[in-house]
Amino acid sequence: MRGYPKGRRRRAEIVEAAFAKFASIGYRNASMVQIAADCGVSQHGPGASLPTKEALLAAVLEERDRVNGELFFAGFDATADGLDYFSRLARLVEYNATVPELVRLYAVLSVEAADPAHPAHAYFVDRHAHIRRDIRDALEELHARGLVRPGTDIAGADSDLMALIDGLQVQWLLDRPAWTWVPACGSGLSEMLLVEVP
Amino acid sequence: MRGYPKGRRRRAEIVEAAFAKFASIGYRNASMVQIAADCGVSQHGPGASLPTKEALLAAVLEERDRVNGELFFAGFDATADGLDYFSRLARLVEYNATVPELVRLYAVLSVEAADPAHPAHAYFVDRHAHIRRDIRDALEELHARGLVRPGTDIAGADSDLMALIDGLQVQWLLDRPAWTWVPACGSGLSEMLLVEVP
Repeated sequence: MRGYPKGRRRRAEIVEAAFAKFASIGYRNASMVQIAADCGVSQHGPGASLPTKEALLAAVLEERDRVNGELFFAGFDATADGLDYFSRLARLVEYNATVPELVRLYAVLSVEAADPAHPAHAYFVDRHAHIRRDIRDALEELHARGLVRPGTDIAGADSDLMALIDGLQVQWLLDRPAWTWVPACGSGLSEMLLVEVP
Repeated sequence: MRGYPKGRRRRAEIVEAAFAKFASIGYRNASMVQIAADCGVSQHGPGASLPTKEALLAAVLEERDRVNGELFFAGFDATADGLDYFSRLARLVEYNATVPELVRLYAVLSVEAADPAHPAHAYFVDRHAHIRRDIRDALEELHARGLVRPGTDIAGADSDLMALIDGLQVQWLLDRPAWTWVPACGSGLSEMLLVEVP
């Protein structure tokens, strides 16, 4: 196992370089030769000093999920406290506002990945389903506590809230100087959905 | 002016080929050589038989706006009748559900264009501002007629509704078989916003 910490550090550097390249020019446009050059390794074809581009993309997405999980959702169960869930979600959106390149990467990838042949297709289908399920669980928990505005139909609100966050982020990416508030946190729709908590 | 109809037809063919290529593999990945080959012309550099790639993108976006304008918004004033505006908008979303490649092109471009150096940056900033202004005008017209649910704050609802449509379209692109209804038309949020019209 000698050399393992060094190999792990080298892998982390490669994943970081791949993330920076994917976020700046997009996954499709990034080349393995550039990524190798950016972290000072030579590329002797896939499998030599670098994994495939698909494997690098998977590693980048996994790494970002790990960071977000630790920062906002570690060990968290959306069925336990809906208010806590939405407060974590709002903090995640606030954090996203500090990393526009990351938000851009996810926005481009989630559309590119609509092609079933795209290497991240299954990841994004799963990710959307997972987030929608958490939002639905949290809303149902709030509904059971009488914290959802009377007369509000929460069916479909999981897709709507996720769409709202994604769509506001696109508007924000396109014209950041025009946004003086954090996307989604200032949105009136979430306020329409939930009753005020004393 | 002899030959003008032929030149116009040839231009339309080139714009159509460029649209198909941009929609299938993305603007950044499309090459002028491929587009030229697809419509059976030879490419002797920009300005010879084909315009620049930037000019082709502008022509594609202008052509789609012309079609949408004629189908849904020709001569329409959003301040005149808010209900009519939202009914046209819902029909546009229904139409979009029949042209997924077009929706994908707009979704990818609107994120790529976040880069101020992108040739479509100004187009998308203007487009977002224009749509938000129309939604705001329509909501204010409805509000003046007492058709907005009492207690609803319509400030920011223009951004929210546009985000909702864009975000639901991304979910739909990613997993179309899972959607049995047209994105946005089935959304509960627009129903929450407007009172029922007798």
